[in-house]
Amino acid sequence: MTVDWIAVDWGTSAVRVWVVGSEGDVIRRARSDRGMGQLAPDAFERALLDLIEADLDTDRVTPVICCGMVGARQGWVEAPYAAVPCAPPGMAEAVRPPVSDPRISVHILPGLRQDQPADVMRGEETQIAGFLSAHADFDGVLCLPGTHAKWARISAGEVVSFRTAMTGEVFALLSGSSVLRHGLAGDGWDDAAFRAAIDDAMTAPAQLTARLFSLRAEGLLHGLEAGTARARLSGLLIGLELAAMRPYWLGQNVALIGEGGLTERYAAALTAVGAAPAVTDATRVTLAGLTRARRQMKDKT
Amino acid sequence: MTVDWIAVDWGTSAVRVWVVGSEGDVIRRARSDRGMGQLAPDAFERALLDLIEADLDTDRVTPVICCGMVGARQGWVEAPYAAVPCAPPGMAEAVRPPVSDPRISVHILPGLRQDQPADVMRGEETQIAGFLSAHADFDGVLCLPGTHAKWARISAGEVVSFRTAMTGEVFALLSGSSVLRHGLAGDGWDDAAFRAAIDDAMTAPAQLTARLFSLRAEGLLHGLEAGTARARLSGLLIGLELAAMRPYWLGQNVALIGEGGLTERYAAALTAVGAAPAVTDATRVTLAGLTRARRQMKDKT
Repeated sequence: MTVDWIAVDWGTSAVRVWVVGSEGDVIRRARSDRGMGQLAPDAFERALLDLIEADLDTDRVTPVICCGMVGARQGWVEAPYAAVPCAPPGMAEAVRPPVSDPRISVHILPGLRQDQPADVMRGEETQIAGFLSAHADFDGVLCLPGTHAKWARISAGEVVSFRTAMTGEVFALLSGSSVLRHGLAGDGWDDAAFRAAIDDAMTAPAQLTARLFSLRAEGLLHGLEAGTARARLSGLLIGLELAAMRPYWLGQNVALIGEGGLTERYAAALTAVGAAPAVTDATRVTLAGLTRARRQMKDKT
Repeated sequence: MTVDWIAVDWGTSAVRVWVVGSEGDVIRRARSDRGMGQLAPDAFERALLDLIEADLDTDRVTPVICCGMVGARQGWVEAPYAAVPCAPPGMAEAVRPPVSDPRISVHILPGLRQDQPADVMRGEETQIAGFLSAHADFDGVLCLPGTHAKWARISAGEVVSFRTAMTGEVFALLSGSSVLRHGLAGDGWDDAAFRAAIDDAMTAPAQLTARLFSLRAEGLLHGLEAGTARARLSGLLIGLELAAMRPYWLGQNVALIGEGGLTERYAAALTAVGAAPAVTDATRVTLAGLTRARRQMKDKT
């Protein structure tokens, strides 16, 4: 099997690699936890080679196309943001870090910036590109749940505007490091509590900070179950996000890009408020977005 | 100088001690970081003796009166909450943990509970008791800023109802452990940004989660100063709290119990919304509340 190119999704805390064959088939997948957050600029090449060296051919240069935080200022090399409104950046905007190994050429796709209100993304723009390769005529809003959830307005193949909610990170901090952690252990779940909390948060978003401590107090006073408390915390935070993002989803055509339990919760929450989103797998669109860049590279040559 | 009794404020992360003489004078102060959070029940007596042993007299039993998390279920011994509405608990409600040292008798003051909406406090009730010893006729609302800010309605010497906001803990988590930490280092401050953020949060509380990430994005795109970012984060969170607690301060007689920069910020924020609070020093009222319990003990004998 001949390796045609290598796709890399390089985030803050992890790196994922797909080795792609000449027929577009994925020959091998690999990942490591050597994310951007722990690498100095001169450590990226070695971290990459540790994952892909076995797939390289000494007779030719294998293109490696990356997206994500690897292109941040603190990353391998800065890939300056493209400013919205614009189509998701592709190979024409990619930046090439210096590499010493002659068997690879590395290309890093830039993220997107919005000046007002100030916002940035790195990685999601490539997922959006991948989504648009399969839905070229999509007109509406994409929601990408995660540590930093992104909401993007899409029209005529461009990202018109976008907004980030820190919902996932706030949930992780509150459930892992705050006083609330005592009442949230385990993996139970209470769907009715989740839906009620979404509703509470959207009706009276200002009450968030008081409602958070009630989770602790209800545990102490009334024996609130951990699964109910966790579902309610998640609902309060996702509900607050839905209240903030109302102009993004109200009366809009909404599609979700994500995977796993978190995306299912966003789907349930959005369905409850009347926006019934289709869900597209995040890994699939990441690879599709990187593949688009590979295609652009071939079209050029 | 004769030691009459010893006052102890024993919280989750620290313990403070006042050795009080027969004239009511503070002979010595001490503190350690052996808070309730790191002590098993059988380790409290040793931790206490390490702070006060030099002040004990073998010929008599010295009363030690404690408030705070030492009386929690995971503390030295559980001092069951008193339910509001009620006067702040005193010596009649105190619980005595078993001690092996014959030179001390230890009394732990209980906290307060509210069943609906569920809420609890431990320690602040003693500050409220201390405040009321000097302002017996106070009718209004007490605000006690901190890791978990408390708001309490006071009337006829009783705590009628109260509510907790996790503002301090959320600020600490976001500024110390979230992605925002990169843009908040240093100790600068921007008062105009603080006031504007209070206003923004109260006007559109639901936008919190999106505004948080804007702090990061403005740092990356527009070079937002750390002092401005920190002031804005503080203002967004305190503004959200003020929005949640509006029924507590709007048109009410509000007094602040606290100390340091955080309390000054609450004073500025409350003044900006038309409630100009008097500020009472938190340490002073803590000692006053414990002294009230000592007085009750003497009155009884």
